[in-house]
Amino acid sequence: MAALRGAAARFRGRAPGGARGAVGWQCYDLLVIGGGSGGLACAKEAAQLGKKVAVLDYVEPSPRGTRWGLGGTCVNVGCIPKKLMHQAALLGGMIRDAPHYGWAVAQAPHDWVTMADAVQNHVRSLNWGHRVQLQDRKVKYFNIKARFVNAHTVCGVSKGGEETLLSAKHIVIATGGRPRYPTHIEGALEYGITSDDLFWLKESPGKTLVVGASYVALECAGLLTGLGLDTTVMIRSVPLRAFDQQMASLVTEHMAGHGTRVLRGCAPERVEKLPDQQLRVTWVDLASDRRDVGTFDTVLWAIGRVPETSSLNLEKAGVRTNPVTGKILVDAQEATSVPHIYAIGDVAEGRPELTPTAIMAGRLLAQRLSGRTSDLMDYDNVPTTVFTPLEYGCVGLSEEAAVARHGEEHVEVYHAFYKPLEFTVPQRDASQCYIKMVCLREPPQLVLGLHFLGPNAGEVTQGFALGIKCGASYPQVMRTVGIHPTCAEEVAKLRISKRSGLDPTVTGC
Amino acid sequence: MAALRGAAARFRGRAPGGARGAVGWQCYDLLVIGGGSGGLACAKEAAQLGKKVAVLDYVEPSPRGTRWGLGGTCVNVGCIPKKLMHQAALLGGMIRDAPHYGWAVAQAPHDWVTMADAVQNHVRSLNWGHRVQLQDRKVKYFNIKARFVNAHTVCGVSKGGEETLLSAKHIVIATGGRPRYPTHIEGALEYGITSDDLFWLKESPGKTLVVGASYVALECAGLLTGLGLDTTVMIRSVPLRAFDQQMASLVTEHMAGHGTRVLRGCAPERVEKLPDQQLRVTWVDLASDRRDVGTFDTVLWAIGRVPETSSLNLEKAGVRTNPVTGKILVDAQEATSVPHIYAIGDVAEGRPELTPTAIMAGRLLAQRLSGRTSDLMDYDNVPTTVFTPLEYGCVGLSEEAAVARHGEEHVEVYHAFYKPLEFTVPQRDASQCYIKMVCLREPPQLVLGLHFLGPNAGEVTQGFALGIKCGASYPQVMRTVGIHPTCAEEVAKLRISKRSGLDPTVTGC
Repeated sequence: MAALRGAAARFRGRAPGGARGAVGWQCYDLLVIGGGSGGLACAKEAAQLGKKVAVLDYVEPSPRGTRWGLGGTCVNVGCIPKKLMHQAALLGGMIRDAPHYGWAVAQAPHDWVTMADAVQNHVRSLNWGHRVQLQDRKVKYFNIKARFVNAHTVCGVSKGGEETLLSAKHIVIATGGRPRYPTHIEGALEYGITSDDLFWLKESPGKTLVVGASYVALECAGLLTGLGLDTTVMIRSVPLRAFDQQMASLVTEHMAGHGTRVLRGCAPERVEKLPDQQLRVTWVDLASDRRDVGTFDTVLWAIGRVPETSSLNLEKAGVRTNPVTGKILVDAQEATSVPHIYAIGDVAEGRPELTPTAIMAGRLLAQRLSGRTSDLMDYDNVPTTVFTPLEYGCVGLSEEAAVARHGEEHVEVYHAFYKPLEFTVPQRDASQCYIKMVCLREPPQLVLGLHFLGPNAGEVTQGFALGIKCGASYPQVMRTVGIHPTCAEEVAKLRISKRSGLDPTVTGC
Repeated sequence: MAALRGAAARFRGRAPGGARGAVGWQCYDLLVIGGGSGGLACAKEAAQLGKKVAVLDYVEPSPRGTRWGLGGTCVNVGCIPKKLMHQAALLGGMIRDAPHYGWAVAQAPHDWVTMADAVQNHVRSLNWGHRVQLQDRKVKYFNIKARFVNAHTVCGVSKGGEETLLSAKHIVIATGGRPRYPTHIEGALEYGITSDDLFWLKESPGKTLVVGASYVALECAGLLTGLGLDTTVMIRSVPLRAFDQQMASLVTEHMAGHGTRVLRGCAPERVEKLPDQQLRVTWVDLASDRRDVGTFDTVLWAIGRVPETSSLNLEKAGVRTNPVTGKILVDAQEATSVPHIYAIGDVAEGRPELTPTAIMAGRLLAQRLSGRTSDLMDYDNVPTTVFTPLEYGCVGLSEEAAVARHGEEHVEVYHAFYKPLEFTVPQRDASQCYIKMVCLREPPQLVLGLHFLGPNAGEVTQGFALGIKCGASYPQVMRTVGIHPTCAEEVAKLRISKRSGLDPTVTGC
């Protein structure tokens, strides 16, 4: 302890408040490392419950030099800019619909700069909003990069190299993750970008190759296609692996039918820059082992994410990680192997990488640390939505998972292909507008999962997630009166079971 | 009976099948009068369960001469054309948004003819679809106007005056309703139109006065405004009387702020046609008793609907109606005062005038008549959505109704003003985007009602209706993880109670 105090004296930045308890400098009740969705929610909640809280946030620039402000992935390089650009892409479709509805508008090419400016300005306003919120709730914010000194102490290094020493009774790690680069591929790091860069590009990415099968890959490829860019997505094996595979197939089928070039069973081998600045990508078709090449303006890697733990010096604190995933091992209390150190959000092992779960987990953790509740975060039946051009919303079990868990003979799947009313006038193709509800077969036919592919899938799915939370059964769904005319009402009309073999196509009113 | 048989012999059309039982000619198991949502659903379900079924449908042209095909109000002059024209109006807003998102489109005026053609063609395809569906299910369809001869026999008159006599064991009246004309107002019938005409107009209605405070009035005024027409809505007293009044105020406030001229506390007195074909309307401001005049191209009455019973000769069958509303009195089985005659949908007393309730009631009735179930239609917690420019979705009790039923001290209302993410880039005004959830105050804080004002309200509300059907409590809503970024997730984040007096404005992420 004495040695550590001596070490602390050498730091220029003094722990604010200066209160040193018997076991060291207990400057804060709670130290949150990472100012993303989970960290900020936890910090604000704890402060509101009377705790003395500090948040440490530091954004290491991407390999391409992209940097951003407070708020984490969701605000800066995830949900928010993604959804806004998705909306821009959807508007392209609306403009194509418009003449059918009587609006004589002429389609003009899309201007990336205008859109990106608007999106980036909105994100900056959110960065600022988060700063203000922390200030309002008296949460101390440090723009420093944290590393553990010991289990109760963290050293933060500023951009300028200044160090600050902070300690706390409880520490929450909420550093999230960053996109993975395929460093074994020649030219990948040098010439490629990731979703950390895409939303901050000042100029259009132009003709783009998106590599990956994750929802990030499909969302990015989908929105770029929607903005009129020549877009290819290269998928090594299975798209949307963690999702229901029938739905995943429909998602990619829709994309392929609406302008995205989908290369299945291919893996990139090399990226080279040509004299004209274009990128020449060589890939292999895994089935035939044949090579192919293509040139692109942009190559975007969306092959997964790496938890942001490497610079935390977790071993100094004794915090254990999963050696395979690199994620921090946690229990139901969100506690790590060190009881007073917690991890929430994308950096924690086995947690869905979703903003709302991180937020809820963070809030509940703060409440438990304040003795306000003993409620644990319930990670079951978490709804989510993939914002591909045709959106895919789901909650609960996939058909595969339900069958694996309960056996095929105990699972009943109700499904329908439907046509959104708004698609009729512009004669939009609705081939992939599909819903399925996975239920237990035995009465009362508990609903295990809902999968919805169509417009506004997020808006549709949210309420059904409440229903499933409340233990909805299939008969209860059938007794729920529809709201006409909507797409959501089709869920309450799912009368055809897969087992029946009947045609699940909805006709007429 | 003998006299009746004699009468029947004079009819040119013979009851098909010709089977005459002991009590008369029992040609059908089930006779459905009215080929709208409820009638068709009942007929198809009964036929599928093995019953011999006939549907009688006949559309009396509107006073302006508008006529349409099979499918009833919803398909022809209600939900379907309304939602499509609402969509057309929304597209106008999207086109205004588009430049902010990078699409350099120039706004052009809206062309009514193109839109109306497309909408009307879609409706005709649905008319045809309903015909085919009846045929497929072996339901006999008669395009004749029905009147009761006695409690088991109906006489149908075709357009050409030919008469057909039909009888059945069970008869279902599902004739719905038609818009009411204020016949006491000079020129109302002569110069005005209703929603029976609006969606079938071949030319733009031009500058329009919509008279009424119903959801039909507000929806029509809203979509006409959205299509760029100079639109006024004249409301005598309270808009959306049956709905939560705070929500109703926000709906009209939004309309007033987005181009619809809203005249409150005014009542029309006279409509005259000017030499230039324009309509000159005189109205009185009820508070000041002052007269005012305005000229319009179209005057649309949306002051309520009249049940379609006048030509049914109900007294011949002994079917009783409510003398005030004119609607047919029914019990929980949907039976009228004559046990084997039923009434469903808008023509039945005390039922919500909604397509999905009529459909579900019709299907359940057919199932009960076939001995398939004894389940009654549950008319509680029926969700619905008003498709005004900012849509209003609701399910369950209004705040007023909850307070009236449980007492103010036992009701907790959680609420939020929120900003849809998509509104940020085009800087759309979100002042009226508002959600409230009405709950019991005592644990487990059962949810009594949900009210959502914002984009895609129908899609958002549907799933929550399931939740409420499943007995959702406020804590269960709070434990439901949000889908980010959506508007629907704001429901799962309603933490501010009205009682707390705290600011319910949602900020940031």
